[in-house]
Amino acid sequence: MVTIGDIGERQLIEDFKSFIRPEGRVGPGDDAAVIGKDIVVTTDVVTFDRHFPVGMTYEQFGWYSAAVNFSDLAAMGARPIGFTAALALPPTLEAQAAYDIMSGIDQCAEFCGTGIIGGDTKPGPGIVAGTAIGTMDGVKPMLRSGARPGDIVAVTGPLGGPAAGHQAIEKELDGFQAAKDTLYMPIPRITEGVELASSGIVSSCMDLSDGLGTALNTICQSSKIGIDVEFDFLPREHYVEEISEITEVPLEKLLLEWGGEYELLFTADPNRLRKLYDAEIEFSIIGAVNDSGRPELVREGKRSIIGYGEY
Amino acid sequence: MVTIGDIGERQLIEDFKSFIRPEGRVGPGDDAAVIGKDIVVTTDVVTFDRHFPVGMTYEQFGWYSAAVNFSDLAAMGARPIGFTAALALPPTLEAQAAYDIMSGIDQCAEFCGTGIIGGDTKPGPGIVAGTAIGTMDGVKPMLRSGARPGDIVAVTGPLGGPAAGHQAIEKELDGFQAAKDTLYMPIPRITEGVELASSGIVSSCMDLSDGLGTALNTICQSSKIGIDVEFDFLPREHYVEEISEITEVPLEKLLLEWGGEYELLFTADPNRLRKLYDAEIEFSIIGAVNDSGRPELVREGKRSIIGYGEY
Repeated sequence: MVTIGDIGERQLIEDFKSFIRPEGRVGPGDDAAVIGKDIVVTTDVVTFDRHFPVGMTYEQFGWYSAAVNFSDLAAMGARPIGFTAALALPPTLEAQAAYDIMSGIDQCAEFCGTGIIGGDTKPGPGIVAGTAIGTMDGVKPMLRSGARPGDIVAVTGPLGGPAAGHQAIEKELDGFQAAKDTLYMPIPRITEGVELASSGIVSSCMDLSDGLGTALNTICQSSKIGIDVEFDFLPREHYVEEISEITEVPLEKLLLEWGGEYELLFTADPNRLRKLYDAEIEFSIIGAVNDSGRPELVREGKRSIIGYGEY
Repeated sequence: MVTIGDIGERQLIEDFKSFIRPEGRVGPGDDAAVIGKDIVVTTDVVTFDRHFPVGMTYEQFGWYSAAVNFSDLAAMGARPIGFTAALALPPTLEAQAAYDIMSGIDQCAEFCGTGIIGGDTKPGPGIVAGTAIGTMDGVKPMLRSGARPGDIVAVTGPLGGPAAGHQAIEKELDGFQAAKDTLYMPIPRITEGVELASSGIVSSCMDLSDGLGTALNTICQSSKIGIDVEFDFLPREHYVEEISEITEVPLEKLLLEWGGEYELLFTADPNRLRKLYDAEIEFSIIGAVNDSGRPELVREGKRSIIGYGEY
């Protein structure tokens, strides 16, 4: 007998994708599906088991379960119009914890300009299956497949926070609350996503939920291009460097190989960047698209291939 | 410490509803939420623990997990445009079982005129959280709140099958495959729902997933009306009566008090029923709306109050 454990979770997800046949324009492999005229839908499961780091509150867990879904909408440039949550919680869980989870979901949905529109609860081990629904408002969704050689590569904010926060928790470092908070309460880049999509100059986009390394590889594969990333260009808060020094985890690893990061990675036409500055979107250029077929890191003049990371 | 077990699952769902604030026209309490211009969304969780009767296959479990969601769309009269499934399956489960579940979901979605547009899998105890998305195509959604005294009350098909099937399985009766199949593979009344909504003569509608008794009480409460149901009018297959006789479970109980039934209950203007006959929708009139404020059963001239049932 071959079990799910034998084939592995990644394979199971790949197999599941073979069943996906979208009604609309965008297929599996992007952050979310587009159906009907311009409705965008995405679903993601988070569990007590995997997504509940030490120090996280139930409210933050609820926020997190919603944020991961809204981030997928942001990656397409969709404006959220609703969120549904299916909860499977242990009967032994304190009722207050359940309300805190719901309240966290509610707060994140409100932050993203929408609300909880439906839900269901059943007994279970601590699972929230969220579904976020958005609309493109007539704008073309951003995909992973449109990057062209010559485009700039950019991210919407500082990197490495969640990886550094995770290290700080694991190594039991006191302080570093800002790093830990990026892990506990990621901010979906909804406004940025909507502005990027409507700018008309973005050629590809995805979120960093599986880490920068994986995202760069995915864009290269989907767009059939290569990317050079300048290590010194990667934006990071000072605490990421500090935690790297204390824990002796290489900075490169924190910035590239760890997921749970919810900034957007995008490529865009370098000659029309003014559109983004005019829209007052914060972003940092980290490199450029070429035709090498893979992502490479340039650090102090030396090149190395960027892998998929561990996440 | 007050746990979820202490307050009970029903209370938790009620509390969850207080967080629901729809963007659109339809609030919590209906089968699904309406957002945006006319997008309808619903989410439902099914579990190995609760929704996997003896004799059901994994494929049927997958079908079932999709069908319960599509039935909620049918109750509003929405046309399905997509389905997402979040699976939490045990790593020890045979991989073939996982594919069978996905295939069952896929088949049900196809039967309902759409497909799987996205999904996620995580390890878990055997849970499928499904979300169905539909469109009203410009037609007004059917709610639970519009029934008026004088309307007829009707259902889209025979009742009691799943209750009888459950009894047949529990009492280990051989045969009665047809009864068992209604339990294993419920048919969401999508075509009927869409036709009912577009007929323009239906004043309220909901599905029978929680049983006829509960549905009648819900329509009475939401619409602030009463309903008389004629026992002899309740449509049922012969095997329901047969199983009632063999198991000595009263026929009334099988027809009214058990859920897992996916026919639609609706009320409609008696003077324009022609519209429904013209659309070739199968339905059976079971009673009439009045102003008594509650549902009552009329059986051999005697009246009794219809309760919420056990489900």
